[in-house]
Amino acid sequence: MAVGTATAAWVRELEAALGADGVLIDPDVTAAYARDQAMFAEAGMPAAVVLPRSTDEVVAVMQAAGRHGIPVVPRGAGSGLVGASNAVDGGITLVLTRMDAVLEVSAADRLAVVQPGVVNKTLRDAVRGHGLFYPPDPASYDWCTLGGNLAMNSGGLCCVKYGVTTDYVLGLEVVLADGRVLRTGRRTVKGVAGYDLARLFVGSEGTLGVITEATLALRPAPRPPVTLVASFGTSAQTGQVVEQVVTSGLVPSMLEVMDRTCIRAVDDMLRADLDRDAAALLLAQSDSGGEVARAEIAALTRLCEAAGADFVHSTDDPAEGDLLMTARRMALPALERLGSSLLLDDVAVPRSRVATFIDGCDTIADSSGLVVGVVGHAGDGNMHPTVVFDGGDPDQRARAFAAFDAILELGLSLGGTITGEHGVGTLKADWLERELGPVSLDVHRAIKSALDPAGLLNPGKVFRTSRAADPGAVAGLAGAH
Amino acid sequence: MAVGTATAAWVRELEAALGADGVLIDPDVTAAYARDQAMFAEAGMPAAVVLPRSTDEVVAVMQAAGRHGIPVVPRGAGSGLVGASNAVDGGITLVLTRMDAVLEVSAADRLAVVQPGVVNKTLRDAVRGHGLFYPPDPASYDWCTLGGNLAMNSGGLCCVKYGVTTDYVLGLEVVLADGRVLRTGRRTVKGVAGYDLARLFVGSEGTLGVITEATLALRPAPRPPVTLVASFGTSAQTGQVVEQVVTSGLVPSMLEVMDRTCIRAVDDMLRADLDRDAAALLLAQSDSGGEVARAEIAALTRLCEAAGADFVHSTDDPAEGDLLMTARRMALPALERLGSSLLLDDVAVPRSRVATFIDGCDTIADSSGLVVGVVGHAGDGNMHPTVVFDGGDPDQRARAFAAFDAILELGLSLGGTITGEHGVGTLKADWLERELGPVSLDVHRAIKSALDPAGLLNPGKVFRTSRAADPGAVAGLAGAH
Repeated sequence: MAVGTATAAWVRELEAALGADGVLIDPDVTAAYARDQAMFAEAGMPAAVVLPRSTDEVVAVMQAAGRHGIPVVPRGAGSGLVGASNAVDGGITLVLTRMDAVLEVSAADRLAVVQPGVVNKTLRDAVRGHGLFYPPDPASYDWCTLGGNLAMNSGGLCCVKYGVTTDYVLGLEVVLADGRVLRTGRRTVKGVAGYDLARLFVGSEGTLGVITEATLALRPAPRPPVTLVASFGTSAQTGQVVEQVVTSGLVPSMLEVMDRTCIRAVDDMLRADLDRDAAALLLAQSDSGGEVARAEIAALTRLCEAAGADFVHSTDDPAEGDLLMTARRMALPALERLGSSLLLDDVAVPRSRVATFIDGCDTIADSSGLVVGVVGHAGDGNMHPTVVFDGGDPDQRARAFAAFDAILELGLSLGGTITGEHGVGTLKADWLERELGPVSLDVHRAIKSALDPAGLLNPGKVFRTSRAADPGAVAGLAGAH
Repeated sequence: MAVGTATAAWVRELEAALGADGVLIDPDVTAAYARDQAMFAEAGMPAAVVLPRSTDEVVAVMQAAGRHGIPVVPRGAGSGLVGASNAVDGGITLVLTRMDAVLEVSAADRLAVVQPGVVNKTLRDAVRGHGLFYPPDPASYDWCTLGGNLAMNSGGLCCVKYGVTTDYVLGLEVVLADGRVLRTGRRTVKGVAGYDLARLFVGSEGTLGVITEATLALRPAPRPPVTLVASFGTSAQTGQVVEQVVTSGLVPSMLEVMDRTCIRAVDDMLRADLDRDAAALLLAQSDSGGEVARAEIAALTRLCEAAGADFVHSTDDPAEGDLLMTARRMALPALERLGSSLLLDDVAVPRSRVATFIDGCDTIADSSGLVVGVVGHAGDGNMHPTVVFDGGDPDQRARAFAAFDAILELGLSLGGTITGEHGVGTLKADWLERELGPVSLDVHRAIKSALDPAGLLNPGKVFRTSRAADPGAVAGLAGAH
């Protein structure tokens, strides 16, 4: 979509504020910013992509957008999985990757201050020399940005011991919809002065404000891991281990599960000599160090054996541990080889329901006639069933979406949530309404309306802004200016 | 204040919904509900005190309050320290102590579901048999309620390792200002479906809704503690230890400090043979168990010795550890013996500024001519300087309030916050405006207005509802109905 003469005024305002190289309007270029990694989430085409270098430039963007009624979609690296940073037609996509400075690392106060465009791995590397650790580790940690992690409240493999992004947020700087700059939170470990606004913005998927700076808590660096792998003949046995880990008070630093579909797909790809007849594989680590780690893994070994594991092996050699983890990391690429398209789901269930959930996904696979592979963060009940299908085949596509919905339905029926860590975006906005119910939705709308009365920030994402409104109508306004 | 004929209609409505024994209007009885433990915070007199037994009864109270425009002050045990549950003149004080059931303890999902009137210690005791632990432990844990802990986001001694109340909240049921019932959050460990509303209500001091049920995460029970005590000739040495604990990656389960004023007051009371010449005493514990705990305390011992401690002693005998902790627990009662009145402050500073803060409090004590004793959770920088004075002497009183303000000023100047864990209430509402600044205050007001447009919930607490409004004027409306 070209920017017509009717829109030239606001583009010129943006260029005046950000410089010509900070404003992209060539559709061949802006198309690259239309969507994130969610293949099947709704997306429009941005009228302009802006790349601010400072909070002041973000303010200028929001002020111009407000004057002209143009919707604004904040975006990091575009590594998201639910379309939360997908463009809206005629809108501005506000890309924060140029604001990529680690402003401070304080070992004495065990915190870092960062701009939103810093890549997750860059912060991890920057604090390592201080003996410190920033735990949240989404799969895309080597290219996703902290701003995106904050907007989505990202998780990862280490959540089972260390929690998610929001657990590390001390303070934020946020540019509000009207261009005002909010500084909220603190540098102290504790603080209860006023509402917890920082955690309201975290996970709000860019619908309430644009995060331009964050003060993040850090932890002491973990010790080299001891790693365990175990295979089981039934998923019920796996579920029994997960439940007993929880009740026995063990807190591994990782506790992952893969089902038979994933085991075989990985084995086909890596020739890793995995147990192809196993119903499920558990992978666990302890990073407590020395004797404690060995004792934790020994306790976990006993739980696996008591549950009737076919095979249990552990190692304190980090290189061998890495090799074992490769099977887990390769699950998604291996599934990708089985079909042209994937629908990656993200359901969290209470930890006592993990086995029931895996079995339910098997049933859904059977009745849909499609492959559904399940990997997941078993230790916190956050499962990623992935539907594999031929996206070019309309019948398969319809069955794939039906299976995707059946998985969400199953998760809710087990007391779970439709998203453990990927977010809602456009992909699950309708399902969100179902999970939250009308009172919670009204409260969401009231807060959105209080902070962004014109509905300019990331319209159509997470939930419909009002019962009557069509998010497309908001995006469409841009053309009128 | 008696309830006149003009207000009788709403009282009869409340009696019809709650039963006569659920509605108290005798001023001799209701006076007991006028204030919490903050001696000097603003307080009015309630026109009625209601004691609902169920969420439905809370709904009935909010509906009646809405129909008649009567302000409502939610209240737990009244153990607060900032007047957050102090009555407003002519309002309803909504006491939640009768809703005191532990509804569920799930070892398999490591969580508990509770009503708001459950006493903190009751939950701790209820989960102990499952090998579980609810960490937040305010000093009043044996009589304060979880509803109050949630409303205030309470902390305690174990925050340095385990975090505060909000870190344990998975889901909430909240009765909104208009009587609708919001259920928000989840039973799963992870979840990002929609805004983090639960953590918005936590710490909002009853200004956004009435919490009627909570789903709380639990942890594995800690191991018996190893305890260390060390005394120092200068507070700078203490600060050095705190800073080195942080930078070295040690995470004790407790790290407390007492200054010379407190040491001497406690020694006078307990004849405990404390080092009366020490500038500060550090008390620390590790609950990691066995060799790990002994190694952590040994590392801490080395840090204390390197900083030039006059005396270091540690023990893994829990009874001896308890005895050492008595000195810390008795600090406030010991200070109370020194004067008729106390002003207990609650400033959190970055951990690197603990020593500077203690020294600053000394200077403030000298210049005010009053005793200021400092105890604090050194490990998380949350300090409780306490001004001791004769409340009957107007000159001392004025100097005490000036010292109290000077301590807040000092905290802010060191990058700290005016409240680490006690909250704002009426005591610090003016200071809150100073800490947050105009943009954050506007956002607070916008959210308050979105959720409670009539301003019925706990008016005048935390912050002034609008720039122009006088909270007394809202409370005064009650008389007009």
